[in-house]
Amino acid sequence: MNLLEAIHTPQDVKILNRSQLKELAKEIRQTLVDVTAINGGHLASNLGVVELIIALHRVFDSPHDRFIFDVSHQIYTHKLLTGRNDAKFRQIRMSGGYSGFSDPTESKHDAFVAGHAGTALSVALGFAYARDRISSREDSHVIAILGDGSLTCGMTLEALNNLVTTTKRLIVVVNDNEFSIDRNVGAISIYLNKILISGLYRVVSSATKKMLGDGKFGKAVVRGIRGLKRAIKSIILPTSYFEYYGLRYFGPIDGHDISKLEEILEFCKFSKVPVLVHVKTVKGYGYGDAAHFPEKFHGMEPERVYDVTTSQPDTISYGEVLGKELAKLAQKDKTIVGVVAAMARGTGLSYLRDHCPDQYIDVGIAEEHAVTFSAALAKCGMRPVCAIYSTFLQRAFDQVLHDVCSQNLPVVFCLDRAGIAAHDGMTHHGIFDLSYLRLIPNAVILQPKDVQEFINALYSAFQWRYPVFIRYPKSCKQNVDLDTIGFSQYLPFGKAEKIIEGQQVCFLALGNMVDLANEVCQELKNFGIKGGIVNVIFVKPLDGEILKDIAKNYELIVTLEDNVLIGGLGSAILEFYNDNGIKINVLRYGWPDEFIKHGTSFDVLRMKHGLSAANIVDKVLSTLNTHIS
Amino acid sequence: MNLLEAIHTPQDVKILNRSQLKELAKEIRQTLVDVTAINGGHLASNLGVVELIIALHRVFDSPHDRFIFDVSHQIYTHKLLTGRNDAKFRQIRMSGGYSGFSDPTESKHDAFVAGHAGTALSVALGFAYARDRISSREDSHVIAILGDGSLTCGMTLEALNNLVTTTKRLIVVVNDNEFSIDRNVGAISIYLNKILISGLYRVVSSATKKMLGDGKFGKAVVRGIRGLKRAIKSIILPTSYFEYYGLRYFGPIDGHDISKLEEILEFCKFSKVPVLVHVKTVKGYGYGDAAHFPEKFHGMEPERVYDVTTSQPDTISYGEVLGKELAKLAQKDKTIVGVVAAMARGTGLSYLRDHCPDQYIDVGIAEEHAVTFSAALAKCGMRPVCAIYSTFLQRAFDQVLHDVCSQNLPVVFCLDRAGIAAHDGMTHHGIFDLSYLRLIPNAVILQPKDVQEFINALYSAFQWRYPVFIRYPKSCKQNVDLDTIGFSQYLPFGKAEKIIEGQQVCFLALGNMVDLANEVCQELKNFGIKGGIVNVIFVKPLDGEILKDIAKNYELIVTLEDNVLIGGLGSAILEFYNDNGIKINVLRYGWPDEFIKHGTSFDVLRMKHGLSAANIVDKVLSTLNTHIS
Repeated sequence: MNLLEAIHTPQDVKILNRSQLKELAKEIRQTLVDVTAINGGHLASNLGVVELIIALHRVFDSPHDRFIFDVSHQIYTHKLLTGRNDAKFRQIRMSGGYSGFSDPTESKHDAFVAGHAGTALSVALGFAYARDRISSREDSHVIAILGDGSLTCGMTLEALNNLVTTTKRLIVVVNDNEFSIDRNVGAISIYLNKILISGLYRVVSSATKKMLGDGKFGKAVVRGIRGLKRAIKSIILPTSYFEYYGLRYFGPIDGHDISKLEEILEFCKFSKVPVLVHVKTVKGYGYGDAAHFPEKFHGMEPERVYDVTTSQPDTISYGEVLGKELAKLAQKDKTIVGVVAAMARGTGLSYLRDHCPDQYIDVGIAEEHAVTFSAALAKCGMRPVCAIYSTFLQRAFDQVLHDVCSQNLPVVFCLDRAGIAAHDGMTHHGIFDLSYLRLIPNAVILQPKDVQEFINALYSAFQWRYPVFIRYPKSCKQNVDLDTIGFSQYLPFGKAEKIIEGQQVCFLALGNMVDLANEVCQELKNFGIKGGIVNVIFVKPLDGEILKDIAKNYELIVTLEDNVLIGGLGSAILEFYNDNGIKINVLRYGWPDEFIKHGTSFDVLRMKHGLSAANIVDKVLSTLNTHIS
Repeated sequence: MNLLEAIHTPQDVKILNRSQLKELAKEIRQTLVDVTAINGGHLASNLGVVELIIALHRVFDSPHDRFIFDVSHQIYTHKLLTGRNDAKFRQIRMSGGYSGFSDPTESKHDAFVAGHAGTALSVALGFAYARDRISSREDSHVIAILGDGSLTCGMTLEALNNLVTTTKRLIVVVNDNEFSIDRNVGAISIYLNKILISGLYRVVSSATKKMLGDGKFGKAVVRGIRGLKRAIKSIILPTSYFEYYGLRYFGPIDGHDISKLEEILEFCKFSKVPVLVHVKTVKGYGYGDAAHFPEKFHGMEPERVYDVTTSQPDTISYGEVLGKELAKLAQKDKTIVGVVAAMARGTGLSYLRDHCPDQYIDVGIAEEHAVTFSAALAKCGMRPVCAIYSTFLQRAFDQVLHDVCSQNLPVVFCLDRAGIAAHDGMTHHGIFDLSYLRLIPNAVILQPKDVQEFINALYSAFQWRYPVFIRYPKSCKQNVDLDTIGFSQYLPFGKAEKIIEGQQVCFLALGNMVDLANEVCQELKNFGIKGGIVNVIFVKPLDGEILKDIAKNYELIVTLEDNVLIGGLGSAILEFYNDNGIKINVLRYGWPDEFIKHGTSFDVLRMKHGLSAANIVDKVLSTLNTHIS
């Protein structure tokens, strides 16, 4: 650990010799492995780009030149080389540590926020457009760094279509590891070369024959053209897809050969047209386990290298439950189809894929298509289950509204990672969905409090002729046997559940917040107050009956939700009471109107933002006293 | 009008002979011209596809075969041929008449809702996937009909990438009129052929020379290949972009030649791979004016064929004001850049384009890219103005949240067509933006009440270091001289305006709803009540001072907004009062939790959904009485 420790700015990387660079890469890899073993994080993708990031920093001059990372989960080496190889890096993804993603508030070397896939090319075009018009930056370079998975993403393709009319100077590095998060799908990645080569040659040959006839000269030309096949394959064919978009193509380049990378990147600096550098890397390179199973290493949990959908001690992964239950349902009902957007394992639907492959579709990183495609399946009488993280469904907000809900189509949405996603932070929290879904007519929105209720909700969703959104965090703190637990009963539509009858104060808690309600009620007992708890379950439609009932029997209502306060459950409760002319004191607890950074855990972030049991107890006591006095 | 009147089902079209078909097309065109002259609507695009729709109905068998229209503003001929040539067609886009878009509740021949661009391919893939699995429909065809503009749209490209892995049988008809709504932009439409032909040939020639050397045979081959140029241009080149995606390409076909269209479509029925039929049509074909100026005919207003951004008698188009004021601002500040997504005229930014072409960018139908590109411009110190209809910004919800607001970037968003878009109906109402934007941290949201305030809001937005969303309907009922009106003063940030001081009841009205507040107050005077009116202006941040003040001085507060009730202004007011421990009676008026169909006017729809002055007066009176008693 000598070389890495001596690097404080990218300038320090430029002076190293070849053998030192090799050593540096090794040291970086060791650091990545050590840190992610403790803190979790994206090990495999970061291991894969060590040499690429080193080469970029040797050839370019950050922050004068701007690196725009797509998703930016591959940014760790960049952080290490830009003055962040320090205690905060050891605390990466934890409270007080660096973000696991690009964060301009951390360093001037992080050009732009990133977390959701597909933004880099649009951002890079904006930077290039501004650069072309701001004289002080005219000589600077803009380099977009994207994974091959982002090429399936609509907004990348929109940007690609605008590239040639926006700037003449842009460097696009495609880091092709043949994975996005799960294995890539679709025409671009799988069929590109195959279709092109067979299709194009067939037509060339027949066109040639047609033109030249069967004469001697004609046959010679045909032979000549056939002879060109190999040459053309390597020279023209792989390039032309991108040349449609006005990009000069270079590649594929070995992404683990720093010298070659430097050579080609140096050359790109002088290009008068936008260039695309196709870099082949191996996800998990240099670390045995990660290279063999890159998919399961994508997002590692602290102190674990387990499959992301495997339940951990004393917690149950909702994704694992979803996969298994969906497979059971799908085996009985052939109209059920699981749809994911490059998140087979993250959502747990890899289990469905493995057991019912004909009832499973992965559309790639393409949430918009996933949702509208699901809408069409529902319109045709099938029963699609669209499993997308809460934060990524934001990408398909319009499709949910315009294609699914406007026609009241019965798509079942399973929104994993709803609520705070502690380690991944700002760009990954699923704390907006209640608000952005609640405003949509026909939407049915619910969150179960535990695994049993989740299974029942899933089965019930197929009974209801509405678009149903089941939201849930990654896991549930429970200790149940997944082999014996299963569907027990249908949830009554739009009905909440009274958990505890109490006096004075009643907690309306949603999903994972029922635990907090219990904790608060325990503490309130010390003050002689027996709080009531209602498990809300349905945020839309609300259980009006129970709401009217508790308004009669309690002085104070406290809403608890793992969502922003604006427009969420608490807001829905206020709307309900107001519109029904009911006057009642309501305290609302949820996330404040600010972007929440990453932190060590849900509980740590909860404490930080006023959602501790002690805080709530204090506020309840003071409100009840005010009310009484 | 003999032939058209005899057509009650698509079967009736199949029995006509060639000369009758010509006559039918003529009759349809006359009907389109007559009806849109009175009702408004998309004349030019509908005139352009008359023959195409006739051919589709002759070759295929709707509704067994499914037509999936993209946007579906070109659907009028389809409606006429599927039993809807009746009184409701004469009332199209009006209350009681048919929708101007695809509407499955109208007819089994309308397969799916459409209104926003880019959905057809995803929908068609869903239909094809289901068809391949439902035996009763195995022999049916799915035909997606899209404009060339939709090929710039991210979700179309996501679907294109999934096409080959989803089905082997799909017919995609690209109606290429070289317009989307404004002229097309970007690589695919403008540069496709040029880049390809020059790029590919350059490489082919040099590769050939390299392979074969300068010998006699080599030269002959080179000559031979050069000779192939013309043949290859038409046979290979236009096809290969789509062949990347696994589509067999046919075209271009003359879209006004019914016989040729039928021939190629019949052939497509038997294809064992997905096919793309490239149809060239002339927007506005067969009608002089519309053919010459297709852009201004895109969406016609009732009884007018004026440019959509031209103000009409007694109303001022906000778009027209925006274009002019933005040009003034841009001339003084070179960092200002207008960004539109294929809506130069609709948003009024065509004026900026014509006067400051270097400070104007049209990215095509690509709202996602438009927003993130704007975010990047702002990050680089430029001042982007992103002008997008409220309903279309839904497409970029994630980009607004994840790219713009998470970094608090000062992009100025101008949301035209906010509130009810009466004639266009369900898929076009801009009645969700307050709710979907309010939940996003850092967002500043306002709506001016008139043209003067709008101009002041626009100038002020550049003073505030936040993402600013200015929403407004298409026009304002005002009679001001646009040549003399201009910026007068900056709006105080986050401050509402007291218009009338009153007693008992105070109206918190937003934007165009201030007029309704005035109307209600006039009527209340008959009951001896002098209502107060506050022009809210800012929905976020709210003016807490004024809210606290009116809570002290009034018994009842009434909120009025041209937005859904869930999560909008009224909801924000409830949150404010609740969280500040203020008890006050609030009545909320806005749009209910349902999808609102089209109607003759804003006022007609308002009456229908309980937003009449009389209704509000009644409710206010009864509430005040209840309160007093």
